[in-house]
Amino acid sequence: MCRGDIMNEMKKALERCGALQYGDFTLASGAKSDYYIDVKKASTDPKTLYLISQLMAEKVQTSGKKYDRIAGIVLGSVPLAAALSLATGIPYVMVRKEKKDHGTSKLIEGNMNSGDEVLVVEDVITSAGSCISAVRTLRENGASVNDVLSVIDRGSGGSEALASVNIKLSSLLKASELLSTEK
Amino acid sequence: MCRGDIMNEMKKALERCGALQYGDFTLASGAKSDYYIDVKKASTDPKTLYLISQLMAEKVQTSGKKYDRIAGIVLGSVPLAAALSLATGIPYVMVRKEKKDHGTSKLIEGNMNSGDEVLVVEDVITSAGSCISAVRTLRENGASVNDVLSVIDRGSGGSEALASVNIKLSSLLKASELLSTEK
Repeated sequence: MCRGDIMNEMKKALERCGALQYGDFTLASGAKSDYYIDVKKASTDPKTLYLISQLMAEKVQTSGKKYDRIAGIVLGSVPLAAALSLATGIPYVMVRKEKKDHGTSKLIEGNMNSGDEVLVVEDVITSAGSCISAVRTLRENGASVNDVLSVIDRGSGGSEALASVNIKLSSLLKASELLSTEK
Repeated sequence: MCRGDIMNEMKKALERCGALQYGDFTLASGAKSDYYIDVKKASTDPKTLYLISQLMAEKVQTSGKKYDRIAGIVLGSVPLAAALSLATGIPYVMVRKEKKDHGTSKLIEGNMNSGDEVLVVEDVITSAGSCISAVRTLRENGASVNDVLSVIDRGSGGSEALASVNIKLSSLLKASELLSTEK
């Protein structure tokens, strides 16, 4: 599927499930935005989750890279990781953001071996702070992490921040593409 | 698929992915057990997750009941809820165990309408404490909850505890079935 088709199909799916809304919004950071994305609305809608998993699987296959594990970040991208795992047959792990008091909680849930090549999936990349934290956790546990694949890249410096820790960001949709075509 | 086939297929899948181990184990509660189940090993293995989702979907279909939403409990059963959602086309929500400080965290993530009939999925039911807490959260938010579907019922009073809050527990496997057949 070509880039334009992916973009249009994703946009339509995000609008249909109510995850993408246009208007005047004030983000949690205080910044203004003329669109609002609630990706949890997308990842809890089975049709949209399936579409995301298929488009991500296509990206993985065409990249020619071989990943041993997918990683989802608690909580937002865990359903994406599970769905991409089902679509590709690659097992996944779940990365927690912080150690909880609960004794049995681990920072990484699921099997991972030292040296495993891990693809991190994310829903929306803004500054990529929580994503970089997850990458650090995975690396500290022996993973080789070089790639992050997100549904949406807001184009707010996340790509550059990830590049500074030697991570290449790919995304299904860029925020600029959401706004550059007919709504 | 008949009950015996489901049981054998699930057992084999759980053993294959390392989620089910036989031996002498001391559980977190201090109780002794001659088997140990780590269902996260099952739910992060795509073949086993797919099998669980198909067997659960079959249970939903043969029950003749119509559910508006599936609910997964953070974190363990969120992948099961997402996979069952993909298998059935029924949207799902994610129920957090407690309110975190983070401002945008909600106890229930995903769309749910008042009066929705909700099926709660769980990985392992022991005393059903966290499951009952999730049922309470869902009911307080307007859901109608009458059924819980788990991968494994340890037979440790969970079914009775759920019955006391008017919930019927179904499971793919009972602990007694894990032990009553050839290993």
